Amino acid sequence: MQSISFYQKAFSSYLEDYQTFGEPSSLYAPINYILKLGGKRLRPVLTLMSAELFDADYKLAMNAALSIEVFHNFSLIHDDIMDAAPLRRGQETVHEKWDVNTGILSGDAMLIMAYKLFENYPCETFQALAKLFSKTALEVCEGQQYDIDFETQDHVTIGSYLKMIEYKTAVLVGAAMKMGAIVANAKKEDQDRIYEFGKNLGIAFQLQDDYLDAFGDPKTFGKQVGGDIIENKKTILYIKSFELGDDEDRQQLSDLYSLNPTDQTDKIKTIKSIFETTGAADATKNEISKFTNKAFEVLNQLNIPNTKKTILKEFGLQLMNRSV
Amino acid sequence: MQSISFYQKAFSSYLEDYQTFGEPSSLYAPINYILKLGGKRLRPVLTLMSAELFDADYKLAMNAALSIEVFHNFSLIHDDIMDAAPLRRGQETVHEKWDVNTGILSGDAMLIMAYKLFENYPCETFQALAKLFSKTALEVCEGQQYDIDFETQDHVTIGSYLKMIEYKTAVLVGAAMKMGAIVANAKKEDQDRIYEFGKNLGIAFQLQDDYLDAFGDPKTFGKQVGGDIIENKKTILYIKSFELGDDEDRQQLSDLYSLNPTDQTDKIKTIKSIFETTGAADATKNEISKFTNKAFEVLNQLNIPNTKKTILKEFGLQLMNRSV
Repeated sequence: MQSISFYQKAFSSYLEDYQTFGEPSSLYAPINYILKLGGKRLRPVLTLMSAELFDADYKLAMNAALSIEVFHNFSLIHDDIMDAAPLRRGQETVHEKWDVNTGILSGDAMLIMAYKLFENYPCETFQALAKLFSKTALEVCEGQQYDIDFETQDHVTIGSYLKMIEYKTAVLVGAAMKMGAIVANAKKEDQDRIYEFGKNLGIAFQLQDDYLDAFGDPKTFGKQVGGDIIENKKTILYIKSFELGDDEDRQQLSDLYSLNPTDQTDKIKTIKSIFETTGAADATKNEISKFTNKAFEVLNQLNIPNTKKTILKEFGLQLMNRSV
Repeated sequence: MQSISFYQKAFSSYLEDYQTFGEPSSLYAPINYILKLGGKRLRPVLTLMSAELFDADYKLAMNAALSIEVFHNFSLIHDDIMDAAPLRRGQETVHEKWDVNTGILSGDAMLIMAYKLFENYPCETFQALAKLFSKTALEVCEGQQYDIDFETQDHVTIGSYLKMIEYKTAVLVGAAMKMGAIVANAKKEDQDRIYEFGKNLGIAFQLQDDYLDAFGDPKTFGKQVGGDIIENKKTILYIKSFELGDDEDRQQLSDLYSLNPTDQTDKIKTIKSIFETTGAADATKNEISKFTNKAFEVLNQLNIPNTKKTILKEFGLQLMNRSV
C-alpha cells in the first residue's frame, strides 16, 4: 500500500498520457479540457488503493480508474449544462467555453470512452467491470433525475433524499472501489463489502457536505457557506427541519425558500437558526455518524490483514475530516 | 430466412415487452415515448436477418437488435436537441415535449441501456458485441461532429463528406449486421464481410437520400423535395458541383447558399440546374452505383449458400428502390 498522494501522482501521470486523441479535434478538445481541470482524483485513487488492498499491483487497475474518472467528468459536463453552471473548478464550463451542443456530444463520447477502457482487460474481468459500470452509470442518471424532480416538489422525504444522494454520488464511490477488487480478482463477498464501504462513506461524505454548507468554517470548507440556502436547495437540513419542526417552522421554511433577496445575510441567519432549534442540525450529524460507522463496520468483515483495514479506516477518517 | 415484415413484426413485439421500466418515471417516460414513435426498424431487422444468414435462430439476436435500436434512438434524441428540431416522425421531439435537460439525461440513460442489453450474452459474445458497439458509437459521435463542423466550413472535400456519412450513418448499419453474425458465431472473415456489406449499402443509401432530395419524386420520396437546398445543406450534390463547376458556378452556388428567400422556388430551380449542368447529378449517381456494387461484391465472398446471397441482394435492391 502506498500513500494517497502517491496514487494521485501515479494517476495524474497516466491521465496525462491519455490526452492524445483523434479527429475531429472539435469533439476531443473539450474532453482534454475537462480532464485537465484537475481535482483531487479521489475516485480513481480509490480504485488503485482497492486493487492493492486485495494484493494486486495498482498499475493493473489504472484503466479501470481512468474509466471512473472519464465517466465522472462526462457527468460533470452534462450536469453543468442542466444546471446552467458557468464555472467548474474556477474555470469556464465546457458549454460556456464552447456551446451546449459541444457539451452534449463531447459528453456522449466520454461515456463511450469510459466503456472502451475496459477493453484492456481479459474477458471475464471486462464483463464484470462493464456490468458494474452500466448498473452504476444508470443509477447516477436516476439520481440526477431525482435531484431535478425534487426542485419542483413540495415534499421530499428523508428516504427519497437518501436514495437520491446514494444514486447520484455514492454508488460511483462504491463502484470505484469494487472495480479495484474486481481487477485484483478478490472474493465476491469482499468485492461486495468494499462496495458497501465506499457507498456508505460516499453517503456520509455527501451528507456532511450538506451540513458544512450551513455550519462549516468558511476558511476551510472551500465553497461559499450558505450556498445551498441561497439556491433554495432542499438538502437534508431542510428536509429534517420540515420533519422535526412544528407548523410555524414549516411555514417559515417554505416562505424563506421561495425568496431570492439581494442581501442573503438575514435569510441565511434565520434558516440556520431553524436548522438548529428544530434539531435538524443534530439529526444530520447523527446520520453522518451512522453512515460513517456503517462503512467502518463493513471493513471489519473484509478478508484482508488488519494493517490494511487500519489504513483504509485512516483514509476514511481523513476524508470525513476533509484533510485529504 | 424469413421476410422483412416477419422480422419487423417479431422485433416490434419484443420492443413492446421492453417498455416496462423503473423509477423515476420522469427519466423513463421519454425513453418509452421515443421508442414507440415507430419507424421501419430496419437496423434491428438487419441484425435478426444477419443472424439467420449464419444459421442462428433470429431470437438469439433479439437483444443485440434491441441494443442497436435503443442506441439509434438515443442518437435521435441528442441530435434533435443539437438541430433544435421540433418534430420527429411527425410527433414532438423529446426536448419539445419535455425539455432539453430531460432530453440530455434520458438520452444518456439510453446509451447505457444499450450496453446493458449485451449482458444477456455469454462472456466472449458480450465482449465482442460491446467492443464493436463502442467503436461504432464513438464513430457516430465523430460523424455528427464532422457534420456540425461542415456547417461553418467554406470548403468540404468529397473525401471528408464521404467519411462523415460513413461515420454518422453507415457504420451503424454495418455494425447491426455484424452483431447478427457475432451472435451466430460466424467466421471472423464473414463478420467483417457482412459489416462491409452493410456499411457500403448504408453509404449508398445516404448518398441516394442526398440525390432524391433534389431529384426525387415528391409523391414517393416521403420528405420535402428541395429540403436540403432550403436549409443550405452541403450535400454531395453541392460538393460535386463545386468540384466540377467553373468559377462562375462556384460563385453562384456560394451566393445562393447564403440566402434564405421567402419563396424558395426560383432558388431550388437554379440550384438543381447547376447540379445538372456541372455534371454533379450524374457524378452522384455514379457514386451511388459504386457503393451499391461494392456492397454486392462483398456478398459474393461470403461463406453462405447462394440462395441466401440472393435474398440479401434482393433486400439491398429493395432498399435502394425505396420499396422496403
